[in-house]
Amino acid sequence: MGNVRFHLAMSQDGYIGGIGEQAWPAHMRLLGWVHDLASWRANAGLEGGQVNDDDQVLREATASVGAYVMGRTMFDFGEEPWGDNPPFHAPVFVLTHRPRETVTKEGGTTYTFVVDGIGSAIRQAKEAVGNKDVRIEGGASAAQQALAAGLVDTFELHVIPVLLGGGVRLFDGIGSDSIELERTRVIESPVATHMSYRVLPANGQPPR
Amino acid sequence: MGNVRFHLAMSQDGYIGGIGEQAWPAHMRLLGWVHDLASWRANAGLEGGQVNDDDQVLREATASVGAYVMGRTMFDFGEEPWGDNPPFHAPVFVLTHRPRETVTKEGGTTYTFVVDGIGSAIRQAKEAVGNKDVRIEGGASAAQQALAAGLVDTFELHVIPVLLGGGVRLFDGIGSDSIELERTRVIESPVATHMSYRVLPANGQPPR
Repeated sequence: MGNVRFHLAMSQDGYIGGIGEQAWPAHMRLLGWVHDLASWRANAGLEGGQVNDDDQVLREATASVGAYVMGRTMFDFGEEPWGDNPPFHAPVFVLTHRPRETVTKEGGTTYTFVVDGIGSAIRQAKEAVGNKDVRIEGGASAAQQALAAGLVDTFELHVIPVLLGGGVRLFDGIGSDSIELERTRVIESPVATHMSYRVLPANGQPPR
Repeated sequence: MGNVRFHLAMSQDGYIGGIGEQAWPAHMRLLGWVHDLASWRANAGLEGGQVNDDDQVLREATASVGAYVMGRTMFDFGEEPWGDNPPFHAPVFVLTHRPRETVTKEGGTTYTFVVDGIGSAIRQAKEAVGNKDVRIEGGASAAQQALAAGLVDTFELHVIPVLLGGGVRLFDGIGSDSIELERTRVIESPVATHMSYRVLPANGQPPR
């Protein structure tokens, strides 16, 4: 059975994006590092790019992913720039309150609109992937809802060495019960600290 | 000239303490790991304890510290348990709005009450220490005020593998301008990821 996971770039003060006129500068500060990487370029149909630890991390973040779950805000933001041949090449389940027919794009991407919540979206994604993983692509709210519902198996934070001072917080609204984690990997690169965690069962004990 | 620095234990979702009835469990979850360490025990007048990477990190967090700056809430919480021979063995400058005579304790600790803000407290602490460092002991507000005022040179986060879901956030109210950081060290231990940063000048460029 595959895992449900997310991989998100986060400032050291906990933001994965900016609000309003800070949206674009925050996006570039948090995600600018991926645009030079070979795996990102290949996925966008471009040649060349750096092959380094960051590239390997990015490669693994999509390896063995069979379907994506995505919040509506992120989808609305991306639908047009992702174009006719989106970078997912897999089924994408979009959380929304507005029912819409499934959209089939080139290259294996489909957009299926789910109106009955994160649990349903993840269940449908799991049914679509067999033994592969389901990746929660973002944004913050989708990851939060999945964490609060106990539906996340693992996650990776690309911690960027900056304090943004404001924006969209990743870890908000995840409920008031502690969630114990096991840190499974840390990779230090010049641009980020890539921190991987496994979510422990709700009745688990903290490691000693 | 010494540095101004802080070293704080923080959950992966950014909290350095709990509120209300969560205060004690959060404190134990975030700081329980120090109580077995040789350096913590020695400072508390106890023998034995573990000598490991965490112990070394804790040792370095007080090494070459010549004075402490502390918020009023933390001081009020600690004054009684710290007792007649507090664990600081150095001048402590307490941020407060209530003027009070300086208190001299055994073992080299003095409590000086500063009513005119973080800048004044850090300046007085620097004057007291010569070439040694000033450590902002906590709580969150003292660290935030110092960051917002551009007065922090370095900091270390002991990132604990837990999502607390609520509490006192370390990185709040630090202003809306980005603060670029240089990650200087990461130490992975079973109980925490110790992440050290240097604060870059306000006009600095992010590292590439």
